[in-house]
Amino acid sequence: MMTIQLSREANKPLYLQVADQLRMQIENGELAPDTRLPASRRLARQLGVNRITVVNAYAELEAEGLVVSRVGSGTFVAAPDRPYQPDKPASAQPAANIRPWTAHQTLTEMARLSHQPGVISFAAGAPASELLPVNQFRRALNDVLRRDGAEALQYEQATGYWPLRDSIAVWLRRQNIPVKGDEIIITTGCQQALDMALRMLTRSGNGVLMVEDPCYLGLLDIVNSRRVSPIGIPLDEHGIQVEWLEPLIRRHRPQLIYVTPTFHNPTGATMPLERRQALLDIAARCNVPILEDTSYDALRYEGDPLPTLKSLDTADIVLQAGGFSKTLVPGLRIGYLIVPPLLHRRLIATKQTTDISTSPLNQRALYTYLQSGHFDQHLRRVRQAYQERRDAMLTALARHFPADARWRTPDGGMYIWVEMPASGPAATDLYMAARNYNVAFAIGSVFSASGSFTHAMRLNFVSNSPADIEEGIRRLGKAWKELLEDFTTPDAAYQPAMHIL
Amino acid sequence: MMTIQLSREANKPLYLQVADQLRMQIENGELAPDTRLPASRRLARQLGVNRITVVNAYAELEAEGLVVSRVGSGTFVAAPDRPYQPDKPASAQPAANIRPWTAHQTLTEMARLSHQPGVISFAAGAPASELLPVNQFRRALNDVLRRDGAEALQYEQATGYWPLRDSIAVWLRRQNIPVKGDEIIITTGCQQALDMALRMLTRSGNGVLMVEDPCYLGLLDIVNSRRVSPIGIPLDEHGIQVEWLEPLIRRHRPQLIYVTPTFHNPTGATMPLERRQALLDIAARCNVPILEDTSYDALRYEGDPLPTLKSLDTADIVLQAGGFSKTLVPGLRIGYLIVPPLLHRRLIATKQTTDISTSPLNQRALYTYLQSGHFDQHLRRVRQAYQERRDAMLTALARHFPADARWRTPDGGMYIWVEMPASGPAATDLYMAARNYNVAFAIGSVFSASGSFTHAMRLNFVSNSPADIEEGIRRLGKAWKELLEDFTTPDAAYQPAMHIL
Repeated sequence: MMTIQLSREANKPLYLQVADQLRMQIENGELAPDTRLPASRRLARQLGVNRITVVNAYAELEAEGLVVSRVGSGTFVAAPDRPYQPDKPASAQPAANIRPWTAHQTLTEMARLSHQPGVISFAAGAPASELLPVNQFRRALNDVLRRDGAEALQYEQATGYWPLRDSIAVWLRRQNIPVKGDEIIITTGCQQALDMALRMLTRSGNGVLMVEDPCYLGLLDIVNSRRVSPIGIPLDEHGIQVEWLEPLIRRHRPQLIYVTPTFHNPTGATMPLERRQALLDIAARCNVPILEDTSYDALRYEGDPLPTLKSLDTADIVLQAGGFSKTLVPGLRIGYLIVPPLLHRRLIATKQTTDISTSPLNQRALYTYLQSGHFDQHLRRVRQAYQERRDAMLTALARHFPADARWRTPDGGMYIWVEMPASGPAATDLYMAARNYNVAFAIGSVFSASGSFTHAMRLNFVSNSPADIEEGIRRLGKAWKELLEDFTTPDAAYQPAMHIL
Repeated sequence: MMTIQLSREANKPLYLQVADQLRMQIENGELAPDTRLPASRRLARQLGVNRITVVNAYAELEAEGLVVSRVGSGTFVAAPDRPYQPDKPASAQPAANIRPWTAHQTLTEMARLSHQPGVISFAAGAPASELLPVNQFRRALNDVLRRDGAEALQYEQATGYWPLRDSIAVWLRRQNIPVKGDEIIITTGCQQALDMALRMLTRSGNGVLMVEDPCYLGLLDIVNSRRVSPIGIPLDEHGIQVEWLEPLIRRHRPQLIYVTPTFHNPTGATMPLERRQALLDIAARCNVPILEDTSYDALRYEGDPLPTLKSLDTADIVLQAGGFSKTLVPGLRIGYLIVPPLLHRRLIATKQTTDISTSPLNQRALYTYLQSGHFDQHLRRVRQAYQERRDAMLTALARHFPADARWRTPDGGMYIWVEMPASGPAATDLYMAARNYNVAFAIGSVFSASGSFTHAMRLNFVSNSPADIEEGIRRLGKAWKELLEDFTTPDAAYQPAMHIL
């Protein structure tokens, strides 16, 4: 049996419902490459639909390149595209724990569904649109083009626009991160900073990287793209469990440790000072550099700020990545990377190789905006709004979610991580059921290098109004209850259904 | 003996003159990693300077990480930074023909020198600043933010802003390139399109790529960064000599062929139709995809447009990269990549991995600008100006350059490629001599995977006014004459001086 749910009342043709659900299972790795799909006749009988419905669904997936049909032997999940590489050496084979499709593709699919009108989505990683300072940026852009003219539209140095680098350094020093402008390299969003760090420090094809499990999925995409093996470190409410670190490092010899110590995505966890210190000590002793992601640091709603790893680093082993997508505007695509002196020249070369430079127009606009002093004011405004929204979501969860669901109150960031009872339906099933209620979230397992957290979900609490949060969580709770009614306690017959066939 | 020239009249301290010239030789690969620099005492005697001058120069380079001094054994050219990789496997060693420093670093150095006031530079790859449509873009940005508000500053799909993709497709179809909007992926400049193509198709560490020799240096940077081996194909006035192709493909089994068939950078050559067809036939027969760079196609000053490889491609083996940096504005950082259907999904995943998306604000501004109909008008204007500048440079070259220098008249693009007599001083020496005359150009050998073209230079004819072109070429001719006076015909004693010590 397969976990496919059809709704005859939905507007969508049945064959597309089947295709959509198979696509998601292929993209999130539940259906591995080369898995044979059931014969159309069998699946049709099982789902109680006409055989042509299944044939059409398979044809749809075949057109998308997700499955291939081999004459006489059936329909199979396609391997990820690797044309023109007939003589690929054995070392280039993906490791067993690398997913065939990127997590972002799964999330794109989720985003596609959730953009439909009437859908309340907690799935995205975006800040609240209504709080973006549109007019202030319009003014900044006009100021730049009036002041700098053609220079703002010409090529820029790979390192970035100097006044912006200097302004970011000033801003970071105010948060006790000891950094000078010439140590900061401007990147095209924080994602590029992470991509470049891995490009410099991990070996493509046979590299090893330690990550939090669960982990920011854009990082897992890089891991996947570079065919690097991710080693997941378990988290608790205080971030990574450092006692796991040294044995795992000794065993797997990673080239890099990636962590988000503050307001971790997706769990919201923050590492206390002692753990940060312990992490640094172990990394220094084992001579493994750390890539610290500070994307969410400025979104603190309560408690005192903690020093970043970079500011505690005495061994020159921390690379710090940050950006303005979560705290200010995603659409400028500006982030930055700070690396130890030894890597500085190589980073500049890598940046030039990647895209010459980040848009000088956008860099100058951000500089002008930062100079205006509006940023602090903006941060105060979003912090206040986001804290209210977090509290609205906590209230709604307590009201509408089952008593055996688990979540924690994050001190900042954008997400609440909810773990549903492991004995109940999986998050993928809830996601499908929730679609009928026009509500969406991010499935927990996409954030995991090991495919764990099948019963968890990440809820973005900042991008909807408190009223929509209450309504969306209410719908989710209702979808859960409905799902539970049809749900038979997992037993031997149910267990293999997760990976089907 | 070393090819170091000092000027006691220059404003710059002697030790910095020595450091500058050594830095350039290290960065362009003339001084290979692990080369032992002469003892300071010896070099000081040779140059006729105080020993402290040489010691200071070495200290300067050491501070920059370019050389290392080992106690008791001397000063050595540093290997490129590879910290934290103690157990790098043998296969990860760079191939012999991969340069230790990127060509862009050399060009950055050239750019640094040429930005000094009073310097006339033909070195850059930039369009003319005074022709950039600054006010039209300011209007477009205002229109976008008024019309789209926060949406223009939010996250965008990895594939790009749909109306822009569609507009580019319309524009390409008008040039007989048969493409639909959904085949176009927006990239952060054409450089990123090239980087992603290599990321998808060449194997890091042991991949092989065919390139033109000489070749666009940003491409050589990618090759270097990915530790892919470049195989150079010789060019003549009609682009790559296709008869070399098949034997080289059979021997080296490249994963990709990179070419700029129209207004090639740096030589200005354009492949006629028959060669394009021959290239496609060979690539199809050998099943090697082609990456076609169309950055300069729209800058045609005479002759009829030729079909792109993509428009002639019947075997689905052409990836086409293009952009707006040369033809419109570099500072938006917008390019695009079109790939065969089989690679489409993988390209989208690669783009997401790299930087999530190209700035949606800039994409919308470019779309709005293209919709306004100003682009054709802009192209007419720059073509006219650039043609005048090309002709001004040809006239100046004929007037001021020696009779045995060789160049051709390009039908379009931005560069004239000049080959100075092979029996005379090298381009690096001319570059140094030209600095005293406040004029700069790009040294030919940086564009070569094989380090050839030591006596060639690339001259950008678009970025200076006709009067500055005449003056700059006059100065270059004068520097050449001066250099020639001190020059002794190469003999056994001179030859090793190129690589010194």
